[in-house]
Amino acid sequence: MPNAPESPKVASSRIVISVDAMGGDRGPAAVVAGIEKSAAKNPDIYFIVHGDEAVLNRLIGRRRALVGRCEVRHAPRVVTMHEKPSHVMRNGEGTSMWSAIESVRAGDATVAVSCGNTGALMALSMIRLRKIPGVNRPAIACLWPSRNPGGFNLMLDVGADVKADAEDLRQYALMGASYARNGLHLERPRIGLLNVGTEEHKGRPEMKVASELIAGAAEAGAFDYIGFVEGSDLPSARVDVIVTDGFTGNIALKTGEGTAKLIGDFLKEAFAATPLSRIAALLAITSLRRLQKRIDPRRVNGGVFLGLNGTVVKSHGAADATGISAAMKLAFQLAKSGFQERLAARVALAGPARQDAPASAEGIGKPE
Amino acid sequence: MPNAPESPKVASSRIVISVDAMGGDRGPAAVVAGIEKSAAKNPDIYFIVHGDEAVLNRLIGRRRALVGRCEVRHAPRVVTMHEKPSHVMRNGEGTSMWSAIESVRAGDATVAVSCGNTGALMALSMIRLRKIPGVNRPAIACLWPSRNPGGFNLMLDVGADVKADAEDLRQYALMGASYARNGLHLERPRIGLLNVGTEEHKGRPEMKVASELIAGAAEAGAFDYIGFVEGSDLPSARVDVIVTDGFTGNIALKTGEGTAKLIGDFLKEAFAATPLSRIAALLAITSLRRLQKRIDPRRVNGGVFLGLNGTVVKSHGAADATGISAAMKLAFQLAKSGFQERLAARVALAGPARQDAPASAEGIGKPE
Repeated sequence: MPNAPESPKVASSRIVISVDAMGGDRGPAAVVAGIEKSAAKNPDIYFIVHGDEAVLNRLIGRRRALVGRCEVRHAPRVVTMHEKPSHVMRNGEGTSMWSAIESVRAGDATVAVSCGNTGALMALSMIRLRKIPGVNRPAIACLWPSRNPGGFNLMLDVGADVKADAEDLRQYALMGASYARNGLHLERPRIGLLNVGTEEHKGRPEMKVASELIAGAAEAGAFDYIGFVEGSDLPSARVDVIVTDGFTGNIALKTGEGTAKLIGDFLKEAFAATPLSRIAALLAITSLRRLQKRIDPRRVNGGVFLGLNGTVVKSHGAADATGISAAMKLAFQLAKSGFQERLAARVALAGPARQDAPASAEGIGKPE
Repeated sequence: MPNAPESPKVASSRIVISVDAMGGDRGPAAVVAGIEKSAAKNPDIYFIVHGDEAVLNRLIGRRRALVGRCEVRHAPRVVTMHEKPSHVMRNGEGTSMWSAIESVRAGDATVAVSCGNTGALMALSMIRLRKIPGVNRPAIACLWPSRNPGGFNLMLDVGADVKADAEDLRQYALMGASYARNGLHLERPRIGLLNVGTEEHKGRPEMKVASELIAGAAEAGAFDYIGFVEGSDLPSARVDVIVTDGFTGNIALKTGEGTAKLIGDFLKEAFAATPLSRIAALLAITSLRRLQKRIDPRRVNGGVFLGLNGTVVKSHGAADATGISAAMKLAFQLAKSGFQERLAARVALAGPARQDAPASAEGIGKPE
């Protein structure tokens, strides 16, 4: 371990992130380039990097900003993108993904980050970290470009699980509010429930039940419930956190990404169409770059797994150094805010659904 | 009736469209302006216009292109946007929406068009026109800007109903294929089933059942089944028709529209940001207008109700003259292609799910 961090657990301002270096589409070189970017910007961040020791030592040894900031932990195997989660659950030991989660479980790092197979990452996170008390289904939360001052809304679940009943949606509201408070710095997040219309009578009957349960959790969860929102409200300034089941959320997320990509491609074609438009593109380049940055999916890189004993960030499989660095920044912010303990405390405080008397806060370490 | 059409049912090239003139957000003036646009472009189109006779005669009397092309049918009442479908079903008689559907039921017009309340329009269409044999749930199909040569893909259901089982999805595939053949002129449409991943094991168990049923209907439906598609595939060139339930389809549709609107707004801000970018916008104006046209929702105006004894087109509530005219063009194309009879024949031919022997074509008037 030539680059062992200098006792990362000692100094209190230091945050250690556990990184699966092997799972992404671009391989460990992109991951190491990303953590170097992150380390250069942030003196308080440290890494435990999991994967092929020889490869990683060679890659890390070249990077000046990583000297004394990384510990490499050898993992001989890699989870591929096409492995079924159930298979990885049984045979995951020895992979860089397993090893990255293990560092969080052991308390050596606060957050794990991986660019690998989402289903496998959730499966391993669930069996190794386990769900926190009061959560039936963990969820994946993602950021969504919005008209709000902070530039982003939060949506969950976007793919952890394809089912969610009314009680699961209530728990998503509690977890989403906690993430918005600690990750987006919103004192009292506004929560909306995704449906096919904003009127009370719209949608499936179970939506009405979920709506009532979420409204009932608003006080304990310290959020404002604004009722149903529609697909067109995902970037809206009237909501901060959009709650939905994993099937609908995943389709909305990919539809939004696909639409943005289509318009981006059409825009490039439009600017390449005539000599005049090519000159126009040159003149507008600064403004267009600013626009691109506002809707660049790399900037919002990182689905956060909520509801486990430990925070896991899923980076895009195709993330480059910029994307990886964004995921590290998100992991750092969540670790620094004490998000994990706050979320667990908030879910415990809210108690089970339909419990009218406020739950006792006794035994909860660190209220939000 | 000062502008009665000259025996619209006699000449075979004439197509009569029944128009609810009162339901839209912009009132009857926008609707009349839209049908005039349409009449000016197309000598074979005729209209029966439903609503307040005095208002409509005044509006139509001013329009030269509408002379001899319109019949007005008086309807004293209007369905508002906030009325519940169940209420309209019981109390809809005497409304312009009811009257517009009635003209299709009576055979006076081939297609009905309305900008009114979607739920009420579907409810009235169902009770007055009734479902065709072999269809459990009617669906609403919409066009989606795509990378395909024709510029559009088709998606259904986008909001007729919030539930759909595997057999419903199979019927949507058959109806969508028929629409794509007759409305988009695709000989053998490629059908995809919307899911959270393209791998066979992804998604809810009922998705796998639906996938098998649709694959089994491909021969009778004369389409190619390409399996699961994701949200990012909605504008893809590898699929023509995307099948999903009304809840998911509605959320995907509104998410796509909301994303396009957000990027459009960001783009306007980017071009207004600096003096240089304002000059650039001027230079690129032709190309930018072409781009705007490619993603303009008014051009794809018209959700088509499928599975009823008669075709109904739902135009956007906020449609202006351009949008209304696009809906009329769609209605005309569908009427001219004999779409209604072809769709009914195709659904009957495909027979019930899991019927292995090909259904007899006997008694079907007009095979596709």
